[in-house]
Amino acid sequence: MPRAVAGPEIERLIQLLARLPGLGPRSARRVALHLIKKREGLMAPLAAALTDALGKIVECRTCGNVDVRDPCSICTDPTRDRQVLVVVADVSDLWALERAGVLNARYHVLGGVLSPLDGVGPEDLNLARLVDRVHQDGVGEVILALGATVDGQTTAHYVTDLLRDLPVKITRLAQGVPVGGELDYLDEGTLSAAIRARTRM
Amino acid sequence: MPRAVAGPEIERLIQLLARLPGLGPRSARRVALHLIKKREGLMAPLAAALTDALGKIVECRTCGNVDVRDPCSICTDPTRDRQVLVVVADVSDLWALERAGVLNARYHVLGGVLSPLDGVGPEDLNLARLVDRVHQDGVGEVILALGATVDGQTTAHYVTDLLRDLPVKITRLAQGVPVGGELDYLDEGTLSAAIRARTRM
Repeated sequence: MPRAVAGPEIERLIQLLARLPGLGPRSARRVALHLIKKREGLMAPLAAALTDALGKIVECRTCGNVDVRDPCSICTDPTRDRQVLVVVADVSDLWALERAGVLNARYHVLGGVLSPLDGVGPEDLNLARLVDRVHQDGVGEVILALGATVDGQTTAHYVTDLLRDLPVKITRLAQGVPVGGELDYLDEGTLSAAIRARTRM
Repeated sequence: MPRAVAGPEIERLIQLLARLPGLGPRSARRVALHLIKKREGLMAPLAAALTDALGKIVECRTCGNVDVRDPCSICTDPTRDRQVLVVVADVSDLWALERAGVLNARYHVLGGVLSPLDGVGPEDLNLARLVDRVHQDGVGEVILALGATVDGQTTAHYVTDLLRDLPVKITRLAQGVPVGGELDYLDEGTLSAAIRARTRM
């Protein structure tokens, strides 16, 4: 344990910042110092934004999104296509798809993917609620927008099995060459998938 | 401007987090989501720590350190050697030296280094107060703990000139092979400095 060099208030701030993803003790100190230098311009607004978010943000009990209301603004948006339900692992994936802006559907956040190695089983994911929603809401298509990883694809197959007896079309994201991708930087798996799923010009 | 995907409270939090050093829009979203998931364990304590620090932390008018009191706890520490004053560019350097724990002296934070390219001149640094302190406090040695960069060394020479007429010994940090450093990874400048300053076994 290195000697504490600043007062307990600063040390406490550094310790908490070091627990943020992507930050370690060294970058946490740098962030703390930056905040102290920009107290009016950044530290005060950040403290206020955190306190504000803390009081308002809740998890949507319908889909698992985070918002200031429950059900969330996506679930209650009357312009969204209620026929299509997009299954994602995490809220960050929901955000990524919303940024892409190609879908106008509703989502279902699983809260992770099946991962035997990390001890994540079906009971740890928001699966029962998914079956209920597909059943009750008369969903026509479930799009499995899960990562093209082993765990992601295992989860996709598990969800497909789970919904097998319901009258719903189940699709998954296409696999292939990413936009801007150069062939000689791509792995064999991606290239094989792209060739197998080739489309007519 | 990508479409806002979360409510204004979350977007505001992401925007502020993205202004922290080392974070960009993508990592700020990841941090925001992590905070939202750990609202009791991390978001609430962080909001409290920021608010606490905001109300308490001040800059020491004597040395430029940040602390909850002015003069700071280092300046007022009666066990510190008042004969030795360590000049550093930034509070982060002061913290680094305190962590090393080899000195029990007082500090003087310049608030940067001279940098013609960045438009930082002598008037931007805390130099007048340094001359006053050396003069009034009867300091015996000034250690210039500045980076071994062009700007750092320019600043070291400038400070040496500034204190020339005062009866004080001025020293700087040794240059050489860093502890754990392998020779074939070091630049020629460091190797030359290490050879010139070689010491007897």
